[in-house]
Amino acid sequence: MATIDLNSDVGESFGNWTFGDDAAIIASVTSVNVAGGFHAGDPTTIRATCAAAAAAGVTVGAHPGYRDLAGFGRRFIEMDAAELSNDVIYQIGAVQALARAAGTAVRYVKPHGALYNTIAHHPVQAQAVVDAVLAVDPTLPLMVLPNSEIERLARAAGLRTVSEAFADRAYNPDGSLVSRTLPGAVLHSVEAVTAQVIRLALDGTVVAIDGSVIAVPATSICLHGDTPDAVRLAAAVRSALLGAGVSIASFV
Amino acid sequence: MATIDLNSDVGESFGNWTFGDDAAIIASVTSVNVAGGFHAGDPTTIRATCAAAAAAGVTVGAHPGYRDLAGFGRRFIEMDAAELSNDVIYQIGAVQALARAAGTAVRYVKPHGALYNTIAHHPVQAQAVVDAVLAVDPTLPLMVLPNSEIERLARAAGLRTVSEAFADRAYNPDGSLVSRTLPGAVLHSVEAVTAQVIRLALDGTVVAIDGSVIAVPATSICLHGDTPDAVRLAAAVRSALLGAGVSIASFV
Amino acid sequence: MATIDLNSDVGESFGNWTFGDDAAIIASVTSVNVAGGFHAGDPTTIRATCAAAAAAGVTVGAHPGYRDLAGFGRRFIEMDAAELSNDVIYQIGAVQALARAAGTAVRYVKPHGALYNTIAHHPVQAQAVVDAVLAVDPTLPLMVLPNSEIERLARAAGLRTVSEAFADRAYNPDGSLVSRTLPGAVLHSVEAVTAQVIRLALDGTVVAIDGSVIAVPATSICLHGDTPDAVRLAAAVRSALLGAGVSIASFV
Amino acid sequence: MATIDLNSDVGESFGNWTFGDDAAIIASVTSVNVAGGFHAGDPTTIRATCAAAAAAGVTVGAHPGYRDLAGFGRRFIEMDAAELSNDVIYQIGAVQALARAAGTAVRYVKPHGALYNTIAHHPVQAQAVVDAVLAVDPTLPLMVLPNSEIERLARAAGLRTVSEAFADRAYNPDGSLVSRTLPGAVLHSVEAVTAQVIRLALDGTVVAIDGSVIAVPATSICLHGDTPDAVRLAAAVRSALLGAGVSIASFV
Repeated sequence: MATIDLNSDVGESFGNWTFGDDAAIIASVTSVNVAGGFHAGDPTTIRATCAAAAAAGVTVGAHPGYRDLAGFGRRFIEMDAAELSNDVIYQIGAVQALARAAGTAVRYVKPHGALYNTIAHHPVQAQAVVDAVLAVDPTLPLMVLPNSEIERLARAAGLRTVSEAFADRAYNPDGSLVSRTLPGAVLHSVEAVTAQVIRLALDGTVVAIDGSVIAVPATSICLHGDTPDAVRLAAAVRSALLGAGVSIASFV
Repeated sequence: MATIDLNSDVGESFGNWTFGDDAAIIASVTSVNVAGGFHAGDPTTIRATCAAAAAAGVTVGAHPGYRDLAGFGRRFIEMDAAELSNDVIYQIGAVQALARAAGTAVRYVKPHGALYNTIAHHPVQAQAVVDAVLAVDPTLPLMVLPNSEIERLARAAGLRTVSEAFADRAYNPDGSLVSRTLPGAVLHSVEAVTAQVIRLALDGTVVAIDGSVIAVPATSICLHGDTPDAVRLAAAVRSALLGAGVSIASFV
Repeated sequence: MATIDLNSDVGESFGNWTFGDDAAIIASVTSVNVAGGFHAGDPTTIRATCAAAAAAGVTVGAHPGYRDLAGFGRRFIEMDAAELSNDVIYQIGAVQALARAAGTAVRYVKPHGALYNTIAHHPVQAQAVVDAVLAVDPTLPLMVLPNSEIERLARAAGLRTVSEAFADRAYNPDGSLVSRTLPGAVLHSVEAVTAQVIRLALDGTVVAIDGSVIAVPATSICLHGDTPDAVRLAAAVRSALLGAGVSIASFV
Repeated sequence: MATIDLNSDVGESFGNWTFGDDAAIIASVTSVNVAGGFHAGDPTTIRATCAAAAAAGVTVGAHPGYRDLAGFGRRFIEMDAAELSNDVIYQIGAVQALARAAGTAVRYVKPHGALYNTIAHHPVQAQAVVDAVLAVDPTLPLMVLPNSEIERLARAAGLRTVSEAFADRAYNPDGSLVSRTLPGAVLHSVEAVTAQVIRLALDGTVVAIDGSVIAVPATSICLHGDTPDAVRLAAAVRSALLGAGVSIASFV
């Protein structure tokens, strides 16, 4: 029987500002990427999110980003490799301590936003992230875009990688994501999203934006938690997967 | 034979700004309090400082402070207890990960600046710090001002406390430090500093500002690393202690 | 005919985080306090908020706070007077430039959150705020709690003060606000709020929490924009004031 | 008689961290670029720096940078044009207010670090900076690298530009600066620096790294204030210029 993990970004509130409906998202997925404080996530939010995940039996990952609160980690920063590596270690360690305080533990790492996108193709920053995970704990899996620079470098370094696909993003024929600046980059209908998710879980393929069918190996599928219909979409995805006989479970 | 630890604050550079002569200080003391990033200390500085301490065989402690880069953690902030506790956990976890990456480990916790001063008498913030250490690792010693609120609450919670005295600060008859806003608060002559250190190490006493002799139990003595003559003073203190037959060694 | 100004805090989003329904609030009030970037308000939010206020014919004030994004400026910080003064000047100047870029101008200053509360009674910080306004523009009015330290010091320095009352806060018999930590501190019913607002506008009095009637001179009444029913409450207040024959207009 | 302005970056301390010897630099130059708070420069530092410049009769410019304290504004950030423009307006306005409080005024704008380098060739970010200056005050001159994208766009928008050359940087034959990552990028000898400065002031040329002589129009020459021999070098430059009959004076 096919098994798939569902993941979502959580813990992205900061102080007085709230972001997303973490409680509802945690109830819908099997893994959560908890912000590390540099792009979002104050310590109290991080701990409360870890506690909610622990209570729900949901796997916790650390979600480090660029040090850019004003840009929510969504702006590329040209960084020195050693500085990036140490920024990532810092954030993973911080989330580890708060996860322990919440009765759980960090079981994987998924970089956030512009850092995620950059390391798909930028060898220097990708290696910096690999070096960070190696330094913290070489047994921690790294969640990556399949067929990316970060996947290659992580595997070359002996790290376990977890292939991630996106429920609501269109793909180019080469397996990269269609840029958000282009039309059709985001799937908006429940039907399109659930069809993509079922195909990913059962066949490991997606229909690319040009109509071709391409291989996209996926151990985990990312659901976005910050859209108005995020919770409804997550429920539809779960229901469609279960209806198709797919088991939904964490990869750890 | 009497034994004493010498500690100093390090890792307080931030990005392009340097602070203190960490290399010289690490060569002079047996324990270093490494900034946690909220009042000072970027991740690259933290890691490099831990690596230098490891290379010198110096014990590493985490040095969490208020989230106040502009104030260097030297301004009291009226904080919610849970938020303070989580801010401290976050910083300890971050330093733990970077210390591991540097081949060492965090072996104690010493709060920084205004937080250190506040928890000497503020029960809510003191308990928040105790709760943070309990959550991270209840075997981590907490370095404290003797006869303070934080000492009482830490011991009540079962934490090990390490009594700290100050080489160059004048004491009130009740064992508290003379406020820096008052004349005579800081000892400037090498003679006064070395006399105070030897008395602390051999007798566990200091001559208070009113001339009375009071008990100040000290397992560790703090040397300031950010004054122009810090390195020279540290050398004089070491030499005086060794000359008096006192062994200088870490408490862990 | 009685005239009253209605003010509200706006521009408190930051980057990807939104806060309050500024468009609806701007449509309901005659003056808006625009965040200065230290407790909330990124430059793009500040400018857009000023532009919306300009389009609506609403008066713009600068709303400086403590440098504390994580605490939203709601935590007291023990600051040096000169540093506080300069932090306030910096924020006023920044909002002035963005207001000009948006086709309007800063016409008054209202300190935010914990700073507002502190200067009601703390002479050093109050004088620091007075000094900041004097340095930027001694003709800028300062919005203050009546009968407070900041009112006394501002007037002594020759600044124009604007007396502010609160629509939904209970008062102590001495004219101070009932602490939010006490029961009854916030009025929740539309009836209680509108009754207090009409009394303030027509008589310059409120019924204090002990039932006594006290004088509270009010040139402006603050409506909170961050509660779920903020917009509905603002509409009810406007309607009640107009029904009572009170004119609603800015004080500048 | 040839006249040249000498400028330097100042006000780049932050809180407890000091940077550069501003007093000595202010005594050596005719214009100072005062940090705007995003890459460096707390409000108290900005004001004190403006006051020192005012006392010395030195022209004050605003020196806005990317919002990146940890990177000192030296890391490229891929930003939205409107956000960049508003960040620049915010910083200029803040420095304007503090300059006024210090008895002087902002008389030009010079972008900092990675922003300066980026707008030499990046049309979107360059236009964002132009738009910011237009919005604040279209009479403010913008200090730029000659023959750069920012120079073209600023002139097209009707802004006055001030051509800047560098005392201690090697030039490529096309007038761009030799990358700091390449050998020979920085001139270290006093002889090489003074020769370049005199040629710039008298002929408007430099000897490029390939030995060719190229035109580099220069109204102002930048001296770096953060190197160990900055003050000595500045004195040598002044002395060489005066000896060559060049007048040293601000361009405003």
